[in-house]
Amino acid sequence: MTKKRAAIIGYGNVGKAVLESLKSAPDFEIAGVVRRSKENLAKELEGITIVTDIKDLQDVDVAILCTPTRKVPEFAKQILALGINTVDSFDIHTSILDLTNELDPIAKQHNAVSIVSAGWDPGSDSVVRTLLEAIAPKGITYTNFGPGMSMGHTVAVKAIEGVKAALSMTIPLGTSIHRRMVYVEVADGYDFATIEQQIKNDPYFVHDETHVIQVSDVDALKDMGHGVNLTRKGVSGCTQNQLFEFNMRINNPALTGQVLVACARATFKQQAGCYTMIEIPPIDFVYGNRNDLIKRLV
Amino acid sequence: MTKKRAAIIGYGNVGKAVLESLKSAPDFEIAGVVRRSKENLAKELEGITIVTDIKDLQDVDVAILCTPTRKVPEFAKQILALGINTVDSFDIHTSILDLTNELDPIAKQHNAVSIVSAGWDPGSDSVVRTLLEAIAPKGITYTNFGPGMSMGHTVAVKAIEGVKAALSMTIPLGTSIHRRMVYVEVADGYDFATIEQQIKNDPYFVHDETHVIQVSDVDALKDMGHGVNLTRKGVSGCTQNQLFEFNMRINNPALTGQVLVACARATFKQQAGCYTMIEIPPIDFVYGNRNDLIKRLV
Repeated sequence: MTKKRAAIIGYGNVGKAVLESLKSAPDFEIAGVVRRSKENLAKELEGITIVTDIKDLQDVDVAILCTPTRKVPEFAKQILALGINTVDSFDIHTSILDLTNELDPIAKQHNAVSIVSAGWDPGSDSVVRTLLEAIAPKGITYTNFGPGMSMGHTVAVKAIEGVKAALSMTIPLGTSIHRRMVYVEVADGYDFATIEQQIKNDPYFVHDETHVIQVSDVDALKDMGHGVNLTRKGVSGCTQNQLFEFNMRINNPALTGQVLVACARATFKQQAGCYTMIEIPPIDFVYGNRNDLIKRLV
Repeated sequence: MTKKRAAIIGYGNVGKAVLESLKSAPDFEIAGVVRRSKENLAKELEGITIVTDIKDLQDVDVAILCTPTRKVPEFAKQILALGINTVDSFDIHTSILDLTNELDPIAKQHNAVSIVSAGWDPGSDSVVRTLLEAIAPKGITYTNFGPGMSMGHTVAVKAIEGVKAALSMTIPLGTSIHRRMVYVEVADGYDFATIEQQIKNDPYFVHDETHVIQVSDVDALKDMGHGVNLTRKGVSGCTQNQLFEFNMRINNPALTGQVLVACARATFKQQAGCYTMIEIPPIDFVYGNRNDLIKRLV
């Protein structure tokens, strides 16, 4: 078996998790890591080719984008234009369709495949939502997140003047309603009550029950665990009250990294173009040959 | 939109559920029902074309097989040879791969599509198992069934001499271990203790904890509810203890019927050949256009 050569673009928490998933995958080898700088390398990068431009890597089959989500469209376009497959975990739900429409013609023109929004939500949760709608077409699905750290909400708090460090936890209250528990370190000379009010008025928080708590050390509260409780109560045919539930308690970057690698594998089985995970046959995500997988999983 | 014309082959509990799902689907119309006899029709079949041979129906696009599982290969082959797509809920796990290999060349030769084992297990559970293995490649998945009636086990009990009526309930004990609760009506002149021993020695029961209970009216105990608790504890990358759980509490024939209709829809989006559900993009199971579905489900 020829192993596929994967490049990791960006090396934060998710990039590191992707490296670990690639090392565990029998069908991949690491072409290299693309970073802004070749300095200050983490110990686990020893022996791995580090470059600042993907063009300096040899024979890359797929690029796994681990950049901030807003950088994904730009990187994906550049890399697809080199004829290299891409996967990303772009997570701005309202812009996913536009992203696929933007990338699809570029992928086709350069005979490459892109799978976007390949994380856990959007991502594997999307597959579960689609499956549940197929088997109970009428009804309501609720996706409840947490308890776990929200990256987006945390970044929004950090942007407020006087916030030295922050952590926004998402707490599920059911029916897709969430409480926000926000922990802040206040910089010297700033007033906690003012910051608290700014957070509660922020568009990220204004619609949710939000509690702001001043702490002396945000870092001591951080863990990477997260969770999902996804429920659907619906109708199959004319039979009411069909009940479905999907639960996860997971390490967030580890799961995102693994989903990205599963999707990187699936890129090699698709026609040129851009896809979301719900457009991919699930068997293509898994390592192994068709006969063994059907015997074991169907 | 031109509606697809579906024929229902066999009209038991599942056939009836398929009829209900087809009536609720905006993209299907009912070409007719194929039965052994045109007599003794249920009330809901009024106005529907009933035939004893599918060749007597007009313009069938897809045949939904609701026959006993052992009859599926024969019917699927005959119908695919007419160039008509087929779906079935063939549920003998150890023979599914062989069935796909048998049907695939026939489907290709006649430019038709077949999706086999389209129920909930095998079927939608298989999709969940595949997804979970993709996102946590190392680990163990347990599929726990019930509480609910096992058709296969009930039939095995009924085959024992002296059993007038029977019901075998599957009770989940976790880690894919199940208890069998068997309720029997004993025919006049037969000994309950002998029947009990025969059931416990039957290959269907010999490996499971089995309790046999004599009752005067099995029918009073029957309900069509069933359940699944599917768990996986595994590793993403090198991160241990990733926890996943999928639960359903459902009406069994209603869910099977709805899955069959979802797969009938998906046949029209595949290349000629034979598939299991894990080989189908989940979006193809759902009614609606791609853009709307991506916006809503991803």
